[in-house]
Amino acid sequence: MAVIKVHGTVFSTATMRVSACLFEKQLEFEIVPIDIRGGEHKKEPFLSLNPFGQVPAFEDQDLKLFESRAITQHIAHAYADKGTELICGDFKKMAIIGAWVEAESHQYDPPATKLTQELVVKPAFGIPKDPAVVEENEPKLIKILDIYEKRLAQSKYIGGDSFTLVDLHHLPTIHYLMGTEAGKLFKSRPNVNAWVADITARPAWSKVLALQKRQ
Amino acid sequence: MAVIKVHGTVFSTATMRVSACLFEKQLEFEIVPIDIRGGEHKKEPFLSLNPFGQVPAFEDQDLKLFESRAITQHIAHAYADKGTELICGDFKKMAIIGAWVEAESHQYDPPATKLTQELVVKPAFGIPKDPAVVEENEPKLIKILDIYEKRLAQSKYIGGDSFTLVDLHHLPTIHYLMGTEAGKLFKSRPNVNAWVADITARPAWSKVLALQKRQ
Repeated sequence: MAVIKVHGTVFSTATMRVSACLFEKQLEFEIVPIDIRGGEHKKEPFLSLNPFGQVPAFEDQDLKLFESRAITQHIAHAYADKGTELICGDFKKMAIIGAWVEAESHQYDPPATKLTQELVVKPAFGIPKDPAVVEENEPKLIKILDIYEKRLAQSKYIGGDSFTLVDLHHLPTIHYLMGTEAGKLFKSRPNVNAWVADITARPAWSKVLALQKRQ
Repeated sequence: MAVIKVHGTVFSTATMRVSACLFEKQLEFEIVPIDIRGGEHKKEPFLSLNPFGQVPAFEDQDLKLFESRAITQHIAHAYADKGTELICGDFKKMAIIGAWVEAESHQYDPPATKLTQELVVKPAFGIPKDPAVVEENEPKLIKILDIYEKRLAQSKYIGGDSFTLVDLHHLPTIHYLMGTEAGKLFKSRPNVNAWVADITARPAWSKVLALQKRQ
């Protein structure tokens, strides 16, 4: 029995972020399915794991955590000696990685998540997309990807010369958006396109997607 | 001459967050004023410090950083032996602090910042507030403060038994919102109210506010 439990759904971007991290660290874990449509995440016992009522919630023995990016940070530090090194021991390099981790969170993620909602989630639930939301968020994402394009001319990955938590945090929304009309925003920028090809080809990421095929 | 430079404005919430951290760590620093109204943060040379064009940008000798929460994380780790201990050496306790740091960032901050914008920033610039934005974000903030009220019944501070980065990150928006109609949301919750009184009474926070009075 796996000690690490991830309470969530294999289709949620935040759950995918945590699973990608666990696969990169070659850790055994169990996904405990949460019935989102049935609102299981808004009731007890889930709320005792995450009072904010969002997937995933994480359990590693007696440690219970929420917020996907806090979970990945914990895994990267607690299991630093396992699998892929997703952080950096050098405190200056780590500070720069940290700045880009926050940029993903506050600059990239808001428009990327809104576009994923409109172009992927709503259609999957048979809800028509809101063109105003798409129109508002595409230029916001373009502005960020233009900054990434320049950044990726200086370093192979967003945080520096190796794959780290920063790159990993982008994977779920990139995966979903690449299959939509917003995919062209990534594909039309050579450095961004090469980076997307590189990070989505990682074996750990294939394992995250394989979890979806089993559903 | 101070080695640490914070490029920003003493009235910006993100700059205040970084200044509060530096005062807690008893570090000398210099605020390099950025003319926001004149759009200085959207042009070079500022964009070389922060490609996203937002204040603050941070310089500590040859290290240049952006994103206020990445800057505070860096300061807390790099100067762990100075001033207030804002993080925790125990990796489980630190993981829990990390979860609440992310909750501040993704749950509390979005409605708190939108309300600050409507109730403080817009009036300061003579722009009328948008009641629809207030009406949308007050219930969102209430939901978070209800969770905080329960959390603060279990521990004196949001991250645990001592003041840490989590609490500090809340200070700027709390300060602004307490002077508005949204202040009642904090004051009407006893545990939240006591926590607000405690963290806003810190000497380091008074120093942040004193910087504004010099303007």
